[in-house]
Amino acid sequence: MKMKGYAMLGIGRTGWIEKEVPACGPLDAIVRPIAVSPCTSDIHTVWEGAIGERSDMILGHEAVGEVVEVGSLVKDFKPGDRVIVPAITPDWASVEAQGGYAMHSGGMLSGWKFSNFKDGVFGEYFHVNEADGNLALLPEGLAAEDCVMLSDMVPTGFHGVELADVQFGDTVCVIGIGPVGLMSVAAAAIGGAGRLYAVGSRPNCVQAAREYGATDVINYREGDIVEQILDKTHGRGVDRVVVAGGDNDTFLQAVEMLRPGGRIGNVNYLGSGDYVRIPRVAWGCGMGHKTIAGGLMPGGRRRMEKLASLMETGRLDTSKLLTHRFQGFDRLEDALMLMKDKPKDLIKPVVTL
Amino acid sequence: MKMKGYAMLGIGRTGWIEKEVPACGPLDAIVRPIAVSPCTSDIHTVWEGAIGERSDMILGHEAVGEVVEVGSLVKDFKPGDRVIVPAITPDWASVEAQGGYAMHSGGMLSGWKFSNFKDGVFGEYFHVNEADGNLALLPEGLAAEDCVMLSDMVPTGFHGVELADVQFGDTVCVIGIGPVGLMSVAAAAIGGAGRLYAVGSRPNCVQAAREYGATDVINYREGDIVEQILDKTHGRGVDRVVVAGGDNDTFLQAVEMLRPGGRIGNVNYLGSGDYVRIPRVAWGCGMGHKTIAGGLMPGGRRRMEKLASLMETGRLDTSKLLTHRFQGFDRLEDALMLMKDKPKDLIKPVVTL
Amino acid sequence: MKMKGYAMLGIGRTGWIEKEVPACGPLDAIVRPIAVSPCTSDIHTVWEGAIGERSDMILGHEAVGEVVEVGSLVKDFKPGDRVIVPAITPDWASVEAQGGYAMHSGGMLSGWKFSNFKDGVFGEYFHVNEADGNLALLPEGLAAEDCVMLSDMVPTGFHGVELADVQFGDTVCVIGIGPVGLMSVAAAAIGGAGRLYAVGSRPNCVQAAREYGATDVINYREGDIVEQILDKTHGRGVDRVVVAGGDNDTFLQAVEMLRPGGRIGNVNYLGSGDYVRIPRVAWGCGMGHKTIAGGLMPGGRRRMEKLASLMETGRLDTSKLLTHRFQGFDRLEDALMLMKDKPKDLIKPVVTL
Amino acid sequence: MKMKGYAMLGIGRTGWIEKEVPACGPLDAIVRPIAVSPCTSDIHTVWEGAIGERSDMILGHEAVGEVVEVGSLVKDFKPGDRVIVPAITPDWASVEAQGGYAMHSGGMLSGWKFSNFKDGVFGEYFHVNEADGNLALLPEGLAAEDCVMLSDMVPTGFHGVELADVQFGDTVCVIGIGPVGLMSVAAAAIGGAGRLYAVGSRPNCVQAAREYGATDVINYREGDIVEQILDKTHGRGVDRVVVAGGDNDTFLQAVEMLRPGGRIGNVNYLGSGDYVRIPRVAWGCGMGHKTIAGGLMPGGRRRMEKLASLMETGRLDTSKLLTHRFQGFDRLEDALMLMKDKPKDLIKPVVTL
Repeated sequence: MKMKGYAMLGIGRTGWIEKEVPACGPLDAIVRPIAVSPCTSDIHTVWEGAIGERSDMILGHEAVGEVVEVGSLVKDFKPGDRVIVPAITPDWASVEAQGGYAMHSGGMLSGWKFSNFKDGVFGEYFHVNEADGNLALLPEGLAAEDCVMLSDMVPTGFHGVELADVQFGDTVCVIGIGPVGLMSVAAAAIGGAGRLYAVGSRPNCVQAAREYGATDVINYREGDIVEQILDKTHGRGVDRVVVAGGDNDTFLQAVEMLRPGGRIGNVNYLGSGDYVRIPRVAWGCGMGHKTIAGGLMPGGRRRMEKLASLMETGRLDTSKLLTHRFQGFDRLEDALMLMKDKPKDLIKPVVTL
Repeated sequence: MKMKGYAMLGIGRTGWIEKEVPACGPLDAIVRPIAVSPCTSDIHTVWEGAIGERSDMILGHEAVGEVVEVGSLVKDFKPGDRVIVPAITPDWASVEAQGGYAMHSGGMLSGWKFSNFKDGVFGEYFHVNEADGNLALLPEGLAAEDCVMLSDMVPTGFHGVELADVQFGDTVCVIGIGPVGLMSVAAAAIGGAGRLYAVGSRPNCVQAAREYGATDVINYREGDIVEQILDKTHGRGVDRVVVAGGDNDTFLQAVEMLRPGGRIGNVNYLGSGDYVRIPRVAWGCGMGHKTIAGGLMPGGRRRMEKLASLMETGRLDTSKLLTHRFQGFDRLEDALMLMKDKPKDLIKPVVTL
Repeated sequence: MKMKGYAMLGIGRTGWIEKEVPACGPLDAIVRPIAVSPCTSDIHTVWEGAIGERSDMILGHEAVGEVVEVGSLVKDFKPGDRVIVPAITPDWASVEAQGGYAMHSGGMLSGWKFSNFKDGVFGEYFHVNEADGNLALLPEGLAAEDCVMLSDMVPTGFHGVELADVQFGDTVCVIGIGPVGLMSVAAAAIGGAGRLYAVGSRPNCVQAAREYGATDVINYREGDIVEQILDKTHGRGVDRVVVAGGDNDTFLQAVEMLRPGGRIGNVNYLGSGDYVRIPRVAWGCGMGHKTIAGGLMPGGRRRMEKLASLMETGRLDTSKLLTHRFQGFDRLEDALMLMKDKPKDLIKPVVTL
Repeated sequence: MKMKGYAMLGIGRTGWIEKEVPACGPLDAIVRPIAVSPCTSDIHTVWEGAIGERSDMILGHEAVGEVVEVGSLVKDFKPGDRVIVPAITPDWASVEAQGGYAMHSGGMLSGWKFSNFKDGVFGEYFHVNEADGNLALLPEGLAAEDCVMLSDMVPTGFHGVELADVQFGDTVCVIGIGPVGLMSVAAAAIGGAGRLYAVGSRPNCVQAAREYGATDVINYREGDIVEQILDKTHGRGVDRVVVAGGDNDTFLQAVEMLRPGGRIGNVNYLGSGDYVRIPRVAWGCGMGHKTIAGGLMPGGRRRMEKLASLMETGRLDTSKLLTHRFQGFDRLEDALMLMKDKPKDLIKPVVTL
């Protein structure tokens, strides 16, 4: 059986293609998307060749959908179930998953499969490996559109705060307030942060940052952000930094503004350049206890359920991210191009199917 | 120089006494209280003899005050400074403090000095050991009354959540919604909890619990609380339990309602009985990974500063606890008796001096 | 096809039975045992009815074997591979495993399947679920007999030390020096313990404890063990207690001998009684930061590989446990009865097939 | 009263000077050295100007000594006590110490005082701040010379392993096998490592590394160390890397040889250059969960006591480090020059006074 999908044809080229509907293995599910969202990663993948050449690979890794088929060994899901699909769908029996790093099952970053190693969610149907471990039921009362943010934006943003290990009353700086950074701001605020600095400048992002709990917004156009932070903290710096934007050089600033004993949690995909540089003196000549952590979001069912519960209980409202809403498969391309062009008023588009 | 203080005269007896104003050692400070609050512990101490016989010991361990004298080695505080005084004032150079358990410096629980080993804060003046390590400046813009809650209620309640190790999206049950339990509810909510059950029944506490973030209130008068929790969680139980009330037998319930891999964080002072009992089968025959932790609040300056920052940034509002407000030294006894009699509408009294 | 197995016929009764060779699902393996060992749990199961009634259930959960068949989805193992089989074989895609508690996948303790929910390893063949996640290759150069100890004795003993969270230089007490306790002693010694007390009395176990790294052996026949420990530690107690023997009342002693800030790690299966009791005063009235943890061993492939590497590198020698060695299937019953009768010179028997 | 000391006169110049015997504050002690050892840091300080200009500053921060005077508030030590003196002597009441980072009390790295901010231990007498928190009794039965290694070599080497968070069975690489690196090797071995690679080439260090528990020694003269490690680990890399030598570029190799989910623990003082570089692709584009930690050793009394207990129980033998032994104050210069010249057979000199 054939289906349509919106695909990367090659580096720099996208378009609609036809493909076979994916086959369902014994542990797997076939899902029909209900709501999807394009991601900056899709842009990197297509127009920057960030993951190398791909041809006729269906794009997209953020989706809520409806199960249409399950394999013979799937126990917890059945056709008709409405499900949240995480961007990261690990192999749960792998030694990496057993060691707590499921997102690296099968090799570094290899828990990321959709629109990387296999077709993504921008097709009429898509395939989910290990359905029992990688799907979560869409909770009643939550909008599919809002829950698409659980695929990637929420878990990635929240993971930055986990990597930075925010504790009650910590002073936190979140660098970057695109949709991931905004979710880091939200996570820091409901994770115990005290003073919470958000670094960014686009007006609607700034407003959202404040609504999500930022106490101060730092605009890099108004001066060096390290100086601004040190000024506001009476020279002491912050306890934690979440890097959710910027580039390789952002780590120079992150280390400079961090107190000894602090942690940096990076969830920004560093797509180019050979090196990240750590400033030797500000890093205490290697002895400053400024820990640098960075990691791909944890995926899988449990993670989706945990984060969805924050939405069910009203503690997290993802709808503020959804600045642009589209209806229908044929609007997918528009949504993707929006991510590519990044108009000023964009935070995140969503497409309901 | 003489001063007045409200004291435990002996078990079951309290009254005003006169004493010498305490002497100030090289590391210490003498503080004049600005706002104080009596604690249930004061009641246990006097009327239940919980810590044994004491005579002419000034009561009280929750205070905001003004520094009137500092020792020759004190660097960071000076007379006139308005300060938050934690109930627990450790010896910071002790091996216990070096190992991360300052509250047990000098012996188990011995970081608790006020109204335990030495005169408390219900005097015209009181003595603070290691002032640089045990005082924190009262932040501008915060009311002294509200900040008295930082001495004990806030750090104790928050520590329950730390001991239970609440993570994003965890299902949490807080047992007991007196002032400490309410602060555990608040801490769970701003510490990442999803569904948050609060066990209690007094109407104003129930209302405060909801305002502090409880999603469900469980009333033990409406049936066994374990059954209610299991019913609401579809038989799975909760990820974390904070014990902030009840008695020794509360642990039977806490273990029963807890999932494997969960943690119990106790901050309830268990004042009588020989044993706490753990139900063998529900504890997985010793193998269920249901960890039981309990501990005295961390005190000291850093802790006060961190928790105060939650108030400065508007994330925590302690004023909801303050149901009864008194003015003047001579109302101290009234406030204490209120804690003893526990009228229905009481959460916590405060006395401004 | 039929096979023979040594089974629990009912509570109190064992014997040889014939059964169908188990079928191999797509993810599974069928394994022929090469070396097996009976466990105290088998004794509890049969003669104390510890897990309830079972009929014609093949016993045993400690084995090294040879793969004879694998399912169609198994990638990393093939017939002929010699493998270590852990006693605990979790469902790795379960939410419990995703949360770090694979041993409780499908319900508390339900990662334990062999000779509990399904036939064990004392048959001509046995079935292993999720082979890729639950088998580990037997390293070259290691004896199958020695590696049978990796199924349960080593991971259980080591987990006690993990639960107690031993750090460099900690003073540790291991209560119980049967085979599991001896592995806790070994784990504490190669996990950084300083002074290491082992509580036991049987001469060959005492000798083994010293060889595995105990610095002092405490004999409960020579006086109260708490008093002995407090005497040796100048009244301070120990930093960590591993409970690997005794009964429900052992926790009374464990809490008494533990310093504030310490941890108890229990890996002793508590088979009877209604309650474990915690002594209130020694537990600091609930506030002593004496954390009580207990849990079933982590199983699965990664764990086997990690622990096997300790044997490959010569850091752990399990052969000291193997006091009684048998050859041939027909000696299985003798080995089991030895565990039942516990002669003085027994630590652990092994049967090579 | 005057005393003699061996001092840095200025960058590049050393010599004997006369100074006042230091005064003893209420919390302090004055100590007469019994055994001392020069450190590579002394060399960096004098001949590389690593900490900037200093004039007439007595060198040295590794010592065992005898207390000759204590302040009025010192409770646990008295003249005549033989004590271990850590290189790092924090201010224990500081907020940094309260937060678990005592070595940064008063500012990043400022827990390091001897031969940095104040006179070191190469004088007839030296001053120790907060004696109760910063001295430890020399255990009976241990040689003063051996225990000098507890001042810096042992705690620094062991901290590398703590920062790398070695768990049972982890594959570990220690880069650098000077005296600190050798202590990292020892720490990894008694901290649970399985396969343990040590990178170095000097024959006596190689031999000591093997004796301390290295299973393989990697010689960078025999090829790229990353390739050698990947070859030996079948392309998987190691779980943990301890950086105890090399230079800024060593991190390139450390990240390359590390598995996702691994940690790097740096205890090598990085004395020059502007940046440490992290290789972007090997670091998983910022998402590989390869955590980079580095920190100054924890000092203070508790740390000394814990590590000394490893020597008392025979788990750690520092005497293998002491390749060159001197007797008498006038040999101090010879010992220091030995550290400067680094003859082939040197690991560490010690001077008994």
